[in-house]
Amino acid sequence: MTRFTFDAPTVIRIKRDGGALPDVAIDWVIDAYTHGRVADEQMSALLMAIFLRGMTDAEIARWTAAMVDSGARLDFTDLRRDGKPLALVDKHSTGGVGDKITIPLVPVVMACGGAVPQAAGRGLGHTGGTLDKLEAIPGFSAELTIDRIREQLCDIGAAVFAAGELAPADRKIYALRDITATTESLPLIASSVMSKKIAEGTRALVLDCKVGSGAFLKTEAESRELARTMVRLGTAHGLRTRALLTDMSTPLGRAVGNAVEVAESLEVLAGGGPDDVVELTLALAHEMLDAAGLDGVDPADTLRDGTAMDRFRALVAAQGGDLSRPLPVGRCRETVTAPESGVVQDIDALAVGMAVWRLGAGRSAPGEQVQFGAGLHIHRRPGEPVTAGEPVLTLYTDIPERFEAAVAELDGAIRIGHTAAPPRPLVIDRIV
Amino acid sequence: MTRFTFDAPTVIRIKRDGGALPDVAIDWVIDAYTHGRVADEQMSALLMAIFLRGMTDAEIARWTAAMVDSGARLDFTDLRRDGKPLALVDKHSTGGVGDKITIPLVPVVMACGGAVPQAAGRGLGHTGGTLDKLEAIPGFSAELTIDRIREQLCDIGAAVFAAGELAPADRKIYALRDITATTESLPLIASSVMSKKIAEGTRALVLDCKVGSGAFLKTEAESRELARTMVRLGTAHGLRTRALLTDMSTPLGRAVGNAVEVAESLEVLAGGGPDDVVELTLALAHEMLDAAGLDGVDPADTLRDGTAMDRFRALVAAQGGDLSRPLPVGRCRETVTAPESGVVQDIDALAVGMAVWRLGAGRSAPGEQVQFGAGLHIHRRPGEPVTAGEPVLTLYTDIPERFEAAVAELDGAIRIGHTAAPPRPLVIDRIV
Repeated sequence: MTRFTFDAPTVIRIKRDGGALPDVAIDWVIDAYTHGRVADEQMSALLMAIFLRGMTDAEIARWTAAMVDSGARLDFTDLRRDGKPLALVDKHSTGGVGDKITIPLVPVVMACGGAVPQAAGRGLGHTGGTLDKLEAIPGFSAELTIDRIREQLCDIGAAVFAAGELAPADRKIYALRDITATTESLPLIASSVMSKKIAEGTRALVLDCKVGSGAFLKTEAESRELARTMVRLGTAHGLRTRALLTDMSTPLGRAVGNAVEVAESLEVLAGGGPDDVVELTLALAHEMLDAAGLDGVDPADTLRDGTAMDRFRALVAAQGGDLSRPLPVGRCRETVTAPESGVVQDIDALAVGMAVWRLGAGRSAPGEQVQFGAGLHIHRRPGEPVTAGEPVLTLYTDIPERFEAAVAELDGAIRIGHTAAPPRPLVIDRIV
Repeated sequence: MTRFTFDAPTVIRIKRDGGALPDVAIDWVIDAYTHGRVADEQMSALLMAIFLRGMTDAEIARWTAAMVDSGARLDFTDLRRDGKPLALVDKHSTGGVGDKITIPLVPVVMACGGAVPQAAGRGLGHTGGTLDKLEAIPGFSAELTIDRIREQLCDIGAAVFAAGELAPADRKIYALRDITATTESLPLIASSVMSKKIAEGTRALVLDCKVGSGAFLKTEAESRELARTMVRLGTAHGLRTRALLTDMSTPLGRAVGNAVEVAESLEVLAGGGPDDVVELTLALAHEMLDAAGLDGVDPADTLRDGTAMDRFRALVAAQGGDLSRPLPVGRCRETVTAPESGVVQDIDALAVGMAVWRLGAGRSAPGEQVQFGAGLHIHRRPGEPVTAGEPVLTLYTDIPERFEAAVAELDGAIRIGHTAAPPRPLVIDRIV
């Protein structure tokens, strides 16, 4: 076999000048970076070159595979329940505002017979992360050993765990992207998401690709291309993969933050909750069950008959959480009122996401502690009537100095008119 | 005054998306990077964005000024010789192969009454640096205090010193550019060169902008634009600045390396030496004298009458060098012979530069020690006849294992034909 030797400037130069990186160059740079033989400065320059020059499908595929290979790929195909292999299936969202869907969705799929191995992430920037939300439940921990994950998958049908050692190259690159303004890049988003999902050991995957102001990619065309790319990557690695394109121009539901989103998820699991949260939970559940080859159960039944709630309580209990203790709520509150009477036409997702981040629900650097009680409540959603002076939003935080910046983010975010704007479909398209 | 607060991702994002950086953003990022508040990773991403998106003239001007302001700007305008202000003038080359011109040029200008405060650089990549060459003289040191520089300027008319504390932002950025493949960028080259030259305290400056395979920018149009940009920057900072565009498609002279280039410079100072080295030395000397407002002396006379050689000996002695001791020569040698008879049509500058770098005359990382005795001698220059089997080049190094890679770089570099190629003009244009 021929040995190839590269150095980082040579690899950077290829991409800088608009070329496609050969497979051997990708394998070399990911391995060398993981092991510290390529410096952070060099990877940062390469990431910016990728951001501006793009990558071919073949490059994205190889980059993703190299990131998967930078660590172990979990495998749960030997696990059995009642003598049958587990129906391993997971879901990933490209990130939104008020996007707590994983919290009601996983128990629904568990109740329908699926087994969900979810390597979950923490929020960064204006979007929240499932781990930050679940950790708002007193005692909940996502630091699970492999043995514990296997046990939970067999015994209760899900494990939500910190990605930890999965795709270590991606973990290093992800931290760099955030501080070097190279986050919003299709090849880098696709390879980051898919390397973790391929390594986590699921066999089927449903992607929720966001479209609108609260999404990382700003146009529907880009989100659609991202969805197509990720579906191809999953399929090439043997995962039954499909994607929904869904609206993220306004926050999902009425709660945005950490603990407040858990509370809203509990409402949904109790058979109530905002319509849009229920609709998206069920749409994604249908996709997951279909991808996992499970039929015969209507996921909506599991919300009505309490079986999804039972599964959620079992999952939380298995991971140390105590739902009998109260969820944290920010000690200080502030209200944003309607400047005029009429109908709420729009509440901008990005502005709300930024406001909640300012309140302390998110972090501005990896590793920062988030405030579990920070967040906001939406009293009037798009389409609902409002009277001048009535509260539209209530903001919560433990640090009252943060209200000023949060309220400033909301300037112009709430549009009120004489009539309701025509409703946007929540599920825009399905990509297989 | 309004206070602006930036963060690095915000600044990077502006350039990444093709915008022009506001003055306050440039001032902030250069200052914050100099003081470690912007990380190397972030500056690397910004440099790649600048490489690919470019900079407006206004951005280059502000970036250069901010780099000058990151340290002290030397000022020698108070110095007098015979009661008159010194005629402060310097020269800078954008970097070539066999480009030892500074070594004979500075003494010529000294002998004509100029005073040269030269902050000199070390070589990196395939081009040599004046300091590496002069340090091949046993005992020579370029670590001069400001007081010593002032004394030398008054007493003997020149000081060649390591840039040291000048434009510290540039020093940090220069080291990053080399490892992140962001060297060959017009805005970054122009601002790097000019920040050091503005800070070093000269009042007039002549730029030797290289064109051809051995230059960093590959087309004449780019080199011309670089020259224009640097002349504008110098003029804006009060330096009488002009530039010559000169040919760097073939090495200058017959010697390429460190000590071998000093030896060839001594030949020129003794009134001999290769025609092209003499021609370029005199062309640049004329420009420097003109820019410094010195007339009445023909620089060619100083080579004929030995006054330039006297000045060189005085300069070397002042900086600790001992020209009575032999110059180092690589212990091992290897010959490259002519494959056929005919006339040498071309010897490629880049290939020769890379070969000499492989022999050990240059460094592959900042701070590496160079071999003073490594280099090569050109027996047959373009236009000269050659017989098959005759030596065209002799290579020198202390490490014989390096010959293989060096000879490989020279593959196809020597073109032999039936007739001489039409000679290229050495000085292509003059830009004021």
